Amino acid sequence: MGDNLQGANLLQFLLDSPADEIKTTLEDIHPADILDALEEYEGDAILLLSRFPSDVLAAIIEEAEDEDKGEILDLFPHEQKTEIISEMASDELVDLLETMHPDEASELLHALPEEDAQEVLELMRHDPETAGGIMATEFVAIREQMTVKETLEYLQVYGEEAESLSYLYVLDEDGILKGVIALREIVVSPFDEHIGPMINTNVISVRADMDQEEVSRIFAKYGFNSIPVVDENDKMLGIVTADDVFYVVEEETTEDMEKMAALAHSEKDYLDTGVFGLAKQRIFWLLFLMISATFTGIIIQGYQKELASVVILAAFIPMLMDTGGNAGTQVSTLIIRGMALGEIKLKDYFKVLYKELRVSLIVGIVLAAVNFLRVWIFHHDPPLAFTVSAALLFTVILSKVVGCTLPMIAQKLKIDPALMASPIITTIVDALSLSVYLYLAKTIYINA
Amino acid sequence: MGDNLQGANLLQFLLDSPADEIKTTLEDIHPADILDALEEYEGDAILLLSRFPSDVLAAIIEEAEDEDKGEILDLFPHEQKTEIISEMASDELVDLLETMHPDEASELLHALPEEDAQEVLELMRHDPETAGGIMATEFVAIREQMTVKETLEYLQVYGEEAESLSYLYVLDEDGILKGVIALREIVVSPFDEHIGPMINTNVISVRADMDQEEVSRIFAKYGFNSIPVVDENDKMLGIVTADDVFYVVEEETTEDMEKMAALAHSEKDYLDTGVFGLAKQRIFWLLFLMISATFTGIIIQGYQKELASVVILAAFIPMLMDTGGNAGTQVSTLIIRGMALGEIKLKDYFKVLYKELRVSLIVGIVLAAVNFLRVWIFHHDPPLAFTVSAALLFTVILSKVVGCTLPMIAQKLKIDPALMASPIITTIVDALSLSVYLYLAKTIYINA
Repeated sequence: MGDNLQGANLLQFLLDSPADEIKTTLEDIHPADILDALEEYEGDAILLLSRFPSDVLAAIIEEAEDEDKGEILDLFPHEQKTEIISEMASDELVDLLETMHPDEASELLHALPEEDAQEVLELMRHDPETAGGIMATEFVAIREQMTVKETLEYLQVYGEEAESLSYLYVLDEDGILKGVIALREIVVSPFDEHIGPMINTNVISVRADMDQEEVSRIFAKYGFNSIPVVDENDKMLGIVTADDVFYVVEEETTEDMEKMAALAHSEKDYLDTGVFGLAKQRIFWLLFLMISATFTGIIIQGYQKELASVVILAAFIPMLMDTGGNAGTQVSTLIIRGMALGEIKLKDYFKVLYKELRVSLIVGIVLAAVNFLRVWIFHHDPPLAFTVSAALLFTVILSKVVGCTLPMIAQKLKIDPALMASPIITTIVDALSLSVYLYLAKTIYINA
Repeated sequence: MGDNLQGANLLQFLLDSPADEIKTTLEDIHPADILDALEEYEGDAILLLSRFPSDVLAAIIEEAEDEDKGEILDLFPHEQKTEIISEMASDELVDLLETMHPDEASELLHALPEEDAQEVLELMRHDPETAGGIMATEFVAIREQMTVKETLEYLQVYGEEAESLSYLYVLDEDGILKGVIALREIVVSPFDEHIGPMINTNVISVRADMDQEEVSRIFAKYGFNSIPVVDENDKMLGIVTADDVFYVVEEETTEDMEKMAALAHSEKDYLDTGVFGLAKQRIFWLLFLMISATFTGIIIQGYQKELASVVILAAFIPMLMDTGGNAGTQVSTLIIRGMALGEIKLKDYFKVLYKELRVSLIVGIVLAAVNFLRVWIFHHDPPLAFTVSAALLFTVILSKVVGCTLPMIAQKLKIDPALMASPIITTIVDALSLSVYLYLAKTIYINA
């Protein structure tokens, strides 16, 4: 990829070449690379962009981050805006309009031909996080009586506008999806063959109201390039393509990770977020967890007398808290990720719980044994070693049980399991395990 | 998708129908669905599988989890094994052979035609985690003098075997990649048009030794269905398809999440891992972190006198530790994820640090203020409230600085940044923040 037109090379070319040469060359450059080059440009973007043809500008806006789309379009006068957006795919136009003020969006829509505007309005009625919200309406429908050659001739006329040609769709007179045929099957077959027998009638489709995360799971399962979207009567509405979903998977995983780290969701990249934006993303959960942690403090206060008489007891609090937190994080991460990937289901709960009880027993005994030796060697106090190790074993078992249970309860209650991750579990396990530790210390160690 | 042949429906059909009907219908069923149906079957799998044609069996093995591939193949006698693997795509055959004992793999390879066996051996020489390790060698190369009709006729003869037909490749006489053309451009053009002018010579390709995570980032950037793989001289070796990479992204993210949760990597799904496997995955890090946490205990021991005289000081330890851990987790998660997605680079370190200093000041002051009021109201002790709040502010700032710095240092040292996540950061921040807290308590609160 060394001598390709990318980055600084491409920018230099755009600055140095005459407009007609730019036009021919840009057809071969991916819009993602043009965007990269523009980002390196320190002059006024419009000086470069004004020399680009409308279809390239449309492709650049489609490729840009959501928050930049409107900004790029706004560089152009009204007539040219209409020209650019009429080159955009329906799903991308919807994304663009959704970033705009409603008045501005409606003004742009009115400049489009009536039929196109209607189609876009129809698309905007779907929840943006569903199959309907990310689908494009440009697909190719064919009739099953066609031969291979007739199909190819049909594509020569009607194929250009389609979002994807990987699959062609067979619909009945009411638009109900009846079959699908892969373009690759057509192009490897003789011209005079009839396509009827090649049609797959066992079509895998998704409902328009299906959540995009579920759609992405179907893509992952089947490895398709695109999937047809239908309404509740199996009427075909559009297609979702794999590259739309690639982005969804990344986005949803990032959201899960944010929740697991006690962060509010942010649409923007870290470096593009201001200091106050970042602070806002973090402060709610930190406050909530800080106040929750004071319960643990109250528990400790209840044992002031014991702690005052045997201050060494306080020295084991950090180790118990950290181990409980870590053991809980391990299992909650496995469960949350497993559920997100569809590998662990609610009905597996008792299987998971039984597994965790046995795992925590093994892990807990090993940790307790190591800890017993350590305390014995350094403090020469077997009863103390016993007390701390017993509390540690209890902490490990408890954290594994809480760590696998909370995410699954959340799922059952239709709350995102990712919210039941490390920070909340740590807070709960801390309170419980310190209670047990101090109780054991009081009854076994001090009063014995 | 209600009345489709999936799950229990499909299983019933496979059990009830005559062999020839099964053969025709299976062509229209995705192998992922056949696998799902087989999983529901409680009888002997070979009874069902023996009625399937070899190409369907090959597709099922390709689709199966790595650890099940060999098992399915082993159900068949030797001659049929050869028949099945000769139907498999080169990249999938490599995956299968890599799960087997070398002797068994080499025996199977010898049963293949010499040329195919050579190709597979060639592929196995690549690191399985690179572009070369996941590519398939079946692609279609064309000459630029062809017309659209000639290209289509060529595909009718040579297209069947290709891993993907989304793009056709133009190579020179030495096999050097010179251009690419999308099948969709060909099928929308008139039969007598020459393909020469449609060829894109600005080809985006990947080197065979490129890490698969980097390859997946290129797919995410451009949204291609497939990407050509070349050697250091730009000689074309094969193609990687988007569905191969979809899986890579999931896998790498899961690995990152495991590391961030202090878990060793496991190839198997949670439910498929035994109790000892799960314990092994967790115990090293728990032990390591437990022993590290004892340093914090040693720090507390150093202040035994102060704690014995003012036991209430111990009550704030959990809140300080938890808040430090949570604040550190928030930023390390953002940084690790941002670096994994390529949004944050090493050169951004000082930008990130400056940002975090300001964010932590805002967040820290808010938390400290709330905490000051709480301690004042409940303990009627302003100096205590001041001491705890000052330690809290310090803890938040410190955890944000450590949380952004450690993952970036790891990246710089070519260690996976995901290892520098919550558990390690928590342990470090705990030790530092408790030192500061107890020092402040001693000098400001007790001795004042």
